[in-house]
Amino acid sequence: MEPIIQSRLETDFYKLTMGQVVFKKYRDLPVKFALKNRTASVPLARHISEAELRRELDHVMTLPLTNTEAHYIRGTNEYGDRMFDEKFIEFFKTFRLPPYRLEWGDEQLTLEFEGPWASVMHWEIPALSIVNELYYRSLMKGMSAFERECVYATGQLKLVEKVRLLLAHGKVTCCDFGLRRRFSRDRHDYAVRVMAEELPKQFLGTSNVYLAMKYGLLPMGTSAHELFMVLAGMFEGIYKEPFLEDALVASHRRVLDDWWGEFGQGLSIYLPDTFSTDFGLRCFTPEQGWAWKGMRHDSGDPYQWGEQKVIPYYRAIGVDPREKLAVFSDSLNVSSMIKLHDHFTGRIRPTFGWGTNLTNDFGFKTLSLVIKTVEACGQRLVKLSDNIAKAIGTPEDIARYAKAVGYSTDYNKECVS
Amino acid sequence: MEPIIQSRLETDFYKLTMGQVVFKKYRDLPVKFALKNRTASVPLARHISEAELRRELDHVMTLPLTNTEAHYIRGTNEYGDRMFDEKFIEFFKTFRLPPYRLEWGDEQLTLEFEGPWASVMHWEIPALSIVNELYYRSLMKGMSAFERECVYATGQLKLVEKVRLLLAHGKVTCCDFGLRRRFSRDRHDYAVRVMAEELPKQFLGTSNVYLAMKYGLLPMGTSAHELFMVLAGMFEGIYKEPFLEDALVASHRRVLDDWWGEFGQGLSIYLPDTFSTDFGLRCFTPEQGWAWKGMRHDSGDPYQWGEQKVIPYYRAIGVDPREKLAVFSDSLNVSSMIKLHDHFTGRIRPTFGWGTNLTNDFGFKTLSLVIKTVEACGQRLVKLSDNIAKAIGTPEDIARYAKAVGYSTDYNKECVS
Repeated sequence: MEPIIQSRLETDFYKLTMGQVVFKKYRDLPVKFALKNRTASVPLARHISEAELRRELDHVMTLPLTNTEAHYIRGTNEYGDRMFDEKFIEFFKTFRLPPYRLEWGDEQLTLEFEGPWASVMHWEIPALSIVNELYYRSLMKGMSAFERECVYATGQLKLVEKVRLLLAHGKVTCCDFGLRRRFSRDRHDYAVRVMAEELPKQFLGTSNVYLAMKYGLLPMGTSAHELFMVLAGMFEGIYKEPFLEDALVASHRRVLDDWWGEFGQGLSIYLPDTFSTDFGLRCFTPEQGWAWKGMRHDSGDPYQWGEQKVIPYYRAIGVDPREKLAVFSDSLNVSSMIKLHDHFTGRIRPTFGWGTNLTNDFGFKTLSLVIKTVEACGQRLVKLSDNIAKAIGTPEDIARYAKAVGYSTDYNKECVS
Repeated sequence: MEPIIQSRLETDFYKLTMGQVVFKKYRDLPVKFALKNRTASVPLARHISEAELRRELDHVMTLPLTNTEAHYIRGTNEYGDRMFDEKFIEFFKTFRLPPYRLEWGDEQLTLEFEGPWASVMHWEIPALSIVNELYYRSLMKGMSAFERECVYATGQLKLVEKVRLLLAHGKVTCCDFGLRRRFSRDRHDYAVRVMAEELPKQFLGTSNVYLAMKYGLLPMGTSAHELFMVLAGMFEGIYKEPFLEDALVASHRRVLDDWWGEFGQGLSIYLPDTFSTDFGLRCFTPEQGWAWKGMRHDSGDPYQWGEQKVIPYYRAIGVDPREKLAVFSDSLNVSSMIKLHDHFTGRIRPTFGWGTNLTNDFGFKTLSLVIKTVEACGQRLVKLSDNIAKAIGTPEDIARYAKAVGYSTDYNKECVS
């Protein structure tokens, strides 16, 4: 069987953009990432074979960046002229992924990655894709050939239905964010190709740099909680209690400044929910609100987010929200995209980063796996988000951060993807 | 059947580098290219179907430059940081190939391309590949399946033999220059892949930009007679008789200055034989001889070229020829490469641009087809070269140019490729 990850570019585009910022400013900062299975009811360790997982992870460590892939990265200019520096490309070509730490439990497995931030961050996406695909393979293993064919046919028909519905709603635009949770390498490739061919005006691109290169699509992505979480840890180490709120504000602002400094308006989509969108908007100056292209929604009720937080934020700083993008990216499916699109069109400009439901809709329950930064500079890290079920951190740390930022949401919704 | 040319990058790398110089400095200069069958014994018009040729040429005109191909060009930095300008890439993405002019004779066909130099120059390589492949297909058409299989097996064994011989002479390095004369698209792809896999240290790259991208190889090329010929025509139009020699010297120097100005040392391999190597070396100042990396041999006796012209030239300007490259590219095969390598090693640094014999060795007589610039700015163009059989131009023009530069070679060797 072919390896699941076959290219160094089989990662999300934002890992390259964030990677350049980290490489330039925080290269050697010690960071730890860990796998978290938010679908605790699925005993991953009983489904997946340790040997297979090791083989796949080991293979990722051997992948070179080919000359053609280096040309591709160097030639990226969709968000600013030749946005990747030669020094970063050279680093991305030559760095080694640090070793992973894998422990097999009865039900769950421990998978951690520790090392200098600029290197270790590139484990997240391939590792998630691998664990996901091995899990879905395990579900298929007991099946007959006929049953497996039914699974594929189910996925096929669901994809057809998606295409038909989107064609009937020709103003809904979206892109693929589903690499990390895909059913399989092969079906992901197929779904992206079909979307690009059938919906050339609505399907804007993919976060999977390898598929963007393969099919000549726009590589897409914004930025992740990772930047805010790690910088918060770093600043907490500097500021100490009782100045946690100051540390969070200062670190948040630093991330925003770093990002704009590196990519300017080209990539200026703000992800405000790391420590709640309320906090995120408090840190976002009017000058930033004016200049940045828009924001991304990743947790909590999306209508409330738009109506009660983001649109009022723009109005308060004197900006017409209809000039701003709202990139929805939390547990979308076609009907929720259409509903959000119809609701927000004319109020703000909605578009969609479509993940799990696009690349993993084969009749199985989806798995909510994440690999998140859990430690940096010896500090345990925290994410709150607008959905407490998506929070990361120990209960004590979450409480501490919640208190510091005045976190009050009691929105709690199972993560299905 | 699939089209022969399927990518805008299926051209020689030097068409892009020369293309950038032409785009910047001589974009709209009116130029005419024409097909010349130097193997007059083969009545091309009786072999090839006009409808098929038109279909293939028409298809080339429809090919877009994909986003990924644009990334690839933009990302080229092997000969200088980001050597292709955004304006040129934009032009290469959007320009239209001018219409071709095709007339069918009893034995030969007339195929001409006329238009602004920056556009029309991009016909040469795809058109040559197409005519070649259609000719070899015609030879196969009357064959039984078994006979065709024998042709492929012959090509396969000859390739094996090439690999073996080169492995046994591990210091011989070469690259693929065989796109324009290839037996077929498919066999070219195969030969390049095999060479790259089997001879990773000896096979340095390919002139075929598409295959360089596909296999992560170094795109390679120097420059062509085209630049010298067109500029000579342009300068002749300005200087007029009896100042032809002055015009040739001035145009030659202009080309050298344009080239160095655009690419500096990265691409500084001089092709001195357009109006004979003797003339070419007279135009090449000591400063240029010192700075440029080396020269390419494309006509005449290669030993005489090296021993009596190029090595003495370097010695006369006080340069150790062992620091300079000699890129041989005229009708090579493995044994001539080995012989040249053994002869010149320790005297100058030999390497090889291997064309027809690499990509078209299937037991058939090879065809010596060229598409050359024949007119520019209303002037008929001339190439002399060091082999009078390779000369281009009317007999009167050839005589005129020969007189102006003191051309005296009586080397005349049938062009077999």
